[in-house]
Amino acid sequence: MIVIMRIGCSQDEISRVTNRIVDAGLRVYIPHGVERTVIGVVGQAFPGLRDALESLPGVDQVIPVTKPYQLASREFHPEDTIVELDGVTIGGSEIVVMAGPCAVESEEQLLLTAQAVKAAGATVLRGGAFKPRTSPYEFRGLGERGLRILAQVGEETQMPIVTEVMAPHDVDLVARYADILQIGSRNMQNFVLLDEVGRTRKPVLLKRGLSANIQEWLLAAEYVLVQGNEQVILCERGIRTFENYSRNTMDINAIPIIEKVSHLPIIADPSHATGKWYLVSPLALAAVAAGADGLLIEVHPNPDMALADGPQSLTFDNFRLLMSQLQPIAEARSRKLAMPAVRVNP
Amino acid sequence: MIVIMRIGCSQDEISRVTNRIVDAGLRVYIPHGVERTVIGVVGQAFPGLRDALESLPGVDQVIPVTKPYQLASREFHPEDTIVELDGVTIGGSEIVVMAGPCAVESEEQLLLTAQAVKAAGATVLRGGAFKPRTSPYEFRGLGERGLRILAQVGEETQMPIVTEVMAPHDVDLVARYADILQIGSRNMQNFVLLDEVGRTRKPVLLKRGLSANIQEWLLAAEYVLVQGNEQVILCERGIRTFENYSRNTMDINAIPIIEKVSHLPIIADPSHATGKWYLVSPLALAAVAAGADGLLIEVHPNPDMALADGPQSLTFDNFRLLMSQLQPIAEARSRKLAMPAVRVNP
Amino acid sequence: MIVIMRIGCSQDEISRVTNRIVDAGLRVYIPHGVERTVIGVVGQAFPGLRDALESLPGVDQVIPVTKPYQLASREFHPEDTIVELDGVTIGGSEIVVMAGPCAVESEEQLLLTAQAVKAAGATVLRGGAFKPRTSPYEFRGLGERGLRILAQVGEETQMPIVTEVMAPHDVDLVARYADILQIGSRNMQNFVLLDEVGRTRKPVLLKRGLSANIQEWLLAAEYVLVQGNEQVILCERGIRTFENYSRNTMDINAIPIIEKVSHLPIIADPSHATGKWYLVSPLALAAVAAGADGLLIEVHPNPDMALADGPQSLTFDNFRLLMSQLQPIAEARSRKLAMPAVRVNP
Amino acid sequence: MIVIMRIGCSQDEISRVTNRIVDAGLRVYIPHGVERTVIGVVGQAFPGLRDALESLPGVDQVIPVTKPYQLASREFHPEDTIVELDGVTIGGSEIVVMAGPCAVESEEQLLLTAQAVKAAGATVLRGGAFKPRTSPYEFRGLGERGLRILAQVGEETQMPIVTEVMAPHDVDLVARYADILQIGSRNMQNFVLLDEVGRTRKPVLLKRGLSANIQEWLLAAEYVLVQGNEQVILCERGIRTFENYSRNTMDINAIPIIEKVSHLPIIADPSHATGKWYLVSPLALAAVAAGADGLLIEVHPNPDMALADGPQSLTFDNFRLLMSQLQPIAEARSRKLAMPAVRVNP
Repeated sequence: MIVIMRIGCSQDEISRVTNRIVDAGLRVYIPHGVERTVIGVVGQAFPGLRDALESLPGVDQVIPVTKPYQLASREFHPEDTIVELDGVTIGGSEIVVMAGPCAVESEEQLLLTAQAVKAAGATVLRGGAFKPRTSPYEFRGLGERGLRILAQVGEETQMPIVTEVMAPHDVDLVARYADILQIGSRNMQNFVLLDEVGRTRKPVLLKRGLSANIQEWLLAAEYVLVQGNEQVILCERGIRTFENYSRNTMDINAIPIIEKVSHLPIIADPSHATGKWYLVSPLALAAVAAGADGLLIEVHPNPDMALADGPQSLTFDNFRLLMSQLQPIAEARSRKLAMPAVRVNP
Repeated sequence: MIVIMRIGCSQDEISRVTNRIVDAGLRVYIPHGVERTVIGVVGQAFPGLRDALESLPGVDQVIPVTKPYQLASREFHPEDTIVELDGVTIGGSEIVVMAGPCAVESEEQLLLTAQAVKAAGATVLRGGAFKPRTSPYEFRGLGERGLRILAQVGEETQMPIVTEVMAPHDVDLVARYADILQIGSRNMQNFVLLDEVGRTRKPVLLKRGLSANIQEWLLAAEYVLVQGNEQVILCERGIRTFENYSRNTMDINAIPIIEKVSHLPIIADPSHATGKWYLVSPLALAAVAAGADGLLIEVHPNPDMALADGPQSLTFDNFRLLMSQLQPIAEARSRKLAMPAVRVNP
Repeated sequence: MIVIMRIGCSQDEISRVTNRIVDAGLRVYIPHGVERTVIGVVGQAFPGLRDALESLPGVDQVIPVTKPYQLASREFHPEDTIVELDGVTIGGSEIVVMAGPCAVESEEQLLLTAQAVKAAGATVLRGGAFKPRTSPYEFRGLGERGLRILAQVGEETQMPIVTEVMAPHDVDLVARYADILQIGSRNMQNFVLLDEVGRTRKPVLLKRGLSANIQEWLLAAEYVLVQGNEQVILCERGIRTFENYSRNTMDINAIPIIEKVSHLPIIADPSHATGKWYLVSPLALAAVAAGADGLLIEVHPNPDMALADGPQSLTFDNFRLLMSQLQPIAEARSRKLAMPAVRVNP
Repeated sequence: MIVIMRIGCSQDEISRVTNRIVDAGLRVYIPHGVERTVIGVVGQAFPGLRDALESLPGVDQVIPVTKPYQLASREFHPEDTIVELDGVTIGGSEIVVMAGPCAVESEEQLLLTAQAVKAAGATVLRGGAFKPRTSPYEFRGLGERGLRILAQVGEETQMPIVTEVMAPHDVDLVARYADILQIGSRNMQNFVLLDEVGRTRKPVLLKRGLSANIQEWLLAAEYVLVQGNEQVILCERGIRTFENYSRNTMDINAIPIIEKVSHLPIIADPSHATGKWYLVSPLALAAVAAGADGLLIEVHPNPDMALADGPQSLTFDNFRLLMSQLQPIAEARSRKLAMPAVRVNP
């Protein structure tokens, strides 16, 4: 940590800063000859010290030298984390496509979709049983019934399933049915929920908050990691900007940034990042070209009639077309699409 | 709801839209002579219909005519909501100042602060027992012990208390000790938590999410109201923008906007909106000048040593100075500062 | 244009609105049975009418049915615009790569760079002679001397050149040397400058403003088009958001959106969109995967020593690597890289 | 300047950084014992060096210790700048209100407005002759005819006038008629224009760009100051955020921030910051409560019929009401409203 003093600060103000640092059990160094007084903090400072120093008179700014996250950081963990489940690996050389409807509506709808997306090359099945909705008057999902349908269809099609958990007290329930626990963007900083999924040993798909910066996102991952759950998959799903033609703005810069600063796998959700089906495929291709480890895509047998997020869902035909375009993009990045599990008859 | 078709859309595309509307049990009208085909929807449309229509071919945009919130809307509830608790009213002619430390650290710290802020004119005591923290390595509050200290000091100083609740399963616990349940900005769209505080009959202080727009904020209030709890107090606490000199940007426009579109009281939290103590007083004065019904201010006996958010806390002296400047501003808006309750000896 | 009245508006308020519309030489229609009073405007409304109606009492909102731009709109001009210059076409089936240093520093630097980028597959040479700089103390370019170097190296390597013009009174000068006139993001709404480049018959590369939405960007293009200059190339170069790890956020959503709403070609500038060289290649690949018609890339023989924007410049080696990865991505989108012009000996 | 190296950087990487610094004629110091290698730069570094160092391998970040602006900085110029013109002072103890129509439409309209705003307490007359318009199809002002009307009405009512200049070649023309040259938000980084107004000796009112941060805004002021023109007045007029209920978001935090970091006066323009007349008065009061030195307000005799920005203009009645509310707010901040000049008969 480095403390930069104001020009013309008094000796008293400098002493007050250095005393505060020494009180915290650390040492200081003060180099000479710089444009203004700079005080270096020697030793491992706790986060609150920054704030404390910043409020002292004469201090211009305090600059942390160490990033506040460690377990999520590539500096401390150089090799890539690869999440494995039932033959699917996320974060390795394969591109994983997770697809399915926004909300589970019925067994028929889900089975039809699962079969179609699997035939086209998806290897994980997505579907919401608990749906966060901006308005209390909208469809909030089938709840446990939806989970049962998911598990049944997942087994029938031999696809692992990913589904959202919204409340700490539902984590055990959802973990009984799901292979990957999804934390939605609105809950990225629901710290009680993060603690709770961190205590399970299920992979966690952590969506970026709508206005979370990359450091906050990695700190949210740190909440899960610090509980001992190392299987965190990050998911970029669009951030909020002034542009309102599309629902959100896919922050595609975030993909190579995460690859640089963290060892965790990152996938992209172009369905929520755009909100319009005709933008989903171009953005999906872009995400993989930028280095994403996979995609999360909404597909619905009949988007016009979907109970949630119809306008951003691909039809089966559009999804097949996307998968065929994806192959050469993956190869251009020296990756290949994951292969769906082959059913072995007993 | 009004559907605007693209120029040159086909008759088939128009029929598909009108059929979808009629299928939903509604009627259509198609005025002639406008620049392009426009289809009006007659009857009360459900929210999902908009999305469904927007995904149909030939459709340019779908415009909702009705706002998605009703209970929070001034159109449906023209008179101001006034929240009353123990002689303090929020949303009426008085300006209410809620003050106290960011986090409860000890009984001594809280009592000292409560006495100081009450003497200066605050009428509600704030203090955090459960603290949402961006990093898992920071101080997360004293939990139930903090609640007990709050209740005790509140009683001793005869001040109602406001404190945050972070998890649905803690609502009952917090409600036993607190007079106002605070929902933090990161939980503004924690819908399970909103449901839960909606089921209590305690006033709810609902902070605006960091990147929530006004409609989403009122929809979050709607979650509480729809459960039958009508005592919602909105709190503007700064939004996230590109500017990073201050921690957030206080959206002062929101204060008169809320007054226009909603009947709920609105207060401002300049401590979190700025993150720097020397910006707190100017912003507090500005909020009241813009029409806020009250303030939420962090005050600490020794901000340098605070366990949380020290740099944004006022000292007792600065708080007293602020209160003295506030009086004439309140009067300029034909308001007056609420008077602290007088202790009656038994 | 459609006027939506407030619930409970008076008959007088409705009459005032309809009178104002009729005064403007237009007609009205008022459909019945909708949730609230809606007034349709029949005829071509001028832009100011919206504002005028919105300020009338009883009016809730006014919704324009027609987009404010026409010449830039695909609705009015369905076929793609293809800009042609000296054998290079922009907006057709080829992906055009424009590359070169941020600022022209010397003939040697530019020639070396031009030869390297041409050898790797670039077909247009970029380089700044007039540099907009945030601080008055930074290098502002070589001015006309830079233009002469550009023209000379362009001729020597048979590459058309693109360079920025910053002031209306410099347009003639720059147009004498340059093949494409670049309008920088800070000047996207410098309307006097847009008028002026509109009067030339040189292609204009119009960068998106840092916080311009898509409609404003197309309206800026409209300024050029309305002067009779139809050769406008749009360039996405990152927008400003709260994220500050990278300098800006590349709005890759904008690429397929522009393709949908406009006939103008769109290219991407990942160098400015990211500000860091190691993010440039992933973003360049992503832009082409999303459908961009080309790229604008900063390349410098020695980025450490560049007088401007060194950290975002690729070395020759990195640029060659990028070009080799680009080929299969272009093919995946059924495009091919443009071929550099072949020098014909006289 | 301080260079922070990555954990585990090599000795070679450290040497490359220190060599680059020494090459630039500066010295280095490397304190020991910190969490990672930190290299201090001794001496006055030029801005480009930061970029150069940041692109070197092994470097994590480079932190400037000195702010990039000097002339605009309070550190280098502690006492307040007070702009004086014809008996009006801006930046001293008085609150200055500049009012008038958005666009000059006719002599009658302007005279009527000038008399009304002066009677209510305004001391500077505003009005646009050159209007920047988002669309090429909107009214762009009367040009020189508008300037003549402004000058004539200004003389008749004894009010100094402020009006916008949009192009470098118009600066002389506008300076012949105007008392204060306004630079609009879209031109905040039109550096050629800033140079040009810096060469005049007229006060410059510099509006903040829609997405400019405070440092960029002060650097734009620095462009004017460095030319020798010390009379710069800053004007906050709203920034662009995700919120779209109001046209922009008034960044009221900026007012006390500017007061802290700069000696230049700052006024607020609530008309453009909100875009809706009913938000103008609350925001005007808030700005003065936060410490603004004055206001810029749009007033029109008949807002319904205004050629530009009608919905954000106050009527004469609303303006008078605002002025009466402003007085006690100014007093609460130990300021008073400037008094209109008294006409002395010759």
